[in-house]
Amino acid sequence: MKVINDLYDYENYKIVQDSEVFKFSLDSILLAEFVGKLDSSSKILDVCTGNSVVPLILSYYFPNEIVGFEIQKYIAELAKESITLNKKENQIKLIHDDVKNISQYFPGNNFDVIVANPPYFKYQESSLINENKNKAIARHEICLDLKELFKIVKYALKENGTFYLVHIPERLEEILYLCEKEHIIAKQIQFVYTNTSTNATIVLIKCIKNANNALKVNIPLYINDYKSYKNIFRG
Amino acid sequence: MKVINDLYDYENYKIVQDSEVFKFSLDSILLAEFVGKLDSSSKILDVCTGNSVVPLILSYYFPNEIVGFEIQKYIAELAKESITLNKKENQIKLIHDDVKNISQYFPGNNFDVIVANPPYFKYQESSLINENKNKAIARHEICLDLKELFKIVKYALKENGTFYLVHIPERLEEILYLCEKEHIIAKQIQFVYTNTSTNATIVLIKCIKNANNALKVNIPLYINDYKSYKNIFRG
Repeated sequence: MKVINDLYDYENYKIVQDSEVFKFSLDSILLAEFVGKLDSSSKILDVCTGNSVVPLILSYYFPNEIVGFEIQKYIAELAKESITLNKKENQIKLIHDDVKNISQYFPGNNFDVIVANPPYFKYQESSLINENKNKAIARHEICLDLKELFKIVKYALKENGTFYLVHIPERLEEILYLCEKEHIIAKQIQFVYTNTSTNATIVLIKCIKNANNALKVNIPLYINDYKSYKNIFRG
Repeated sequence: MKVINDLYDYENYKIVQDSEVFKFSLDSILLAEFVGKLDSSSKILDVCTGNSVVPLILSYYFPNEIVGFEIQKYIAELAKESITLNKKENQIKLIHDDVKNISQYFPGNNFDVIVANPPYFKYQESSLINENKNKAIARHEICLDLKELFKIVKYALKENGTFYLVHIPERLEEILYLCEKEHIIAKQIQFVYTNTSTNATIVLIKCIKNANNALKVNIPLYINDYKSYKNIFRG
């Protein structure tokens, strides 16, 4: 069922969701917050925008133009409704298409910043059996895998442009392999922990296209400290 | 000047050092502790053994035979003295040679466990100018770089054997790139922090040869908590 929710603690922001199909996650909020600072001239791309939660949070902080791709028709409609509801039609452009078709919309080396909260899990036959199709596509690499994601980032990101990725630690080796291979060099990693006694559950990675290797691993972020870290990211 | 020191808090263990040339670091202790548990039949290789601190700590916990390679003549002598001093000649075999010559000593797929505290820094011309040659070789990739290290591990490690590496977070992307490339798959990562307000300074990585990808990132280790974590690693 489609509902309109308050967008977390972003004052007056609303978001359209459907608990049967797609709801944003804390991971997306962390990703948007992890961006921290932006030049006012930066052009931003959100690769798998869902119901546009990351562009909306970025629009809360920044006036920059943001392009979001969403492959699923119904979820793209939720995104469009959310953008209209918050009167951000002039700032956020929603493209309902497979982001692998990006070269039909934009030339290479076009974006200063790319953000991505892609599907986390490898695709297995059982993925579609256990979940509805919309949720399966959002969670499993059915339409976009890590390799394809990095090809898109390599194509679309400007020289020295920044790529912000949220993912699960389980996939870190594959991610950093692709960073090194495609020269989208990881410069900063933030691990997120639920509490002080369990392994990391989320990883945030900031990469710079064609930078030198010199990675910093931030102090850990505990989910219940999230609001204080908002200030650290933006400090 | 050559001195005999107590080996940290390992009861009755002594180690021969030379502050002008080579002293073991906390990193080596963390590496040895990170091994945690061992099958009694496991054969162990220490790739860059220095004054044999890692084999000595392993011998404190385990009866397994350990082979250590050390390329620098004087440091290999310190290692031999340390081994003799602790009466571990029957357990620890010190080979004074370049570990890249390992196939002259052992067949492939020979070791169940490999540990490595290799040089951390890329070699630059200035490395030798700023430090004495012994220290420069221990710290900079003059005689062994990451790529060569992974070739050796791939050669020497048994199928499903375990590789424990200590390094600096700055090099993590290059390390995980090589893990993925050589199928020495990272299964567990432990970041080490000096305190709760600075970035990670050390990374410990546990890899399994030809395992599936599924990485766990442990709860952070703060140096001043080190003794409590000894118990966690060994628990």
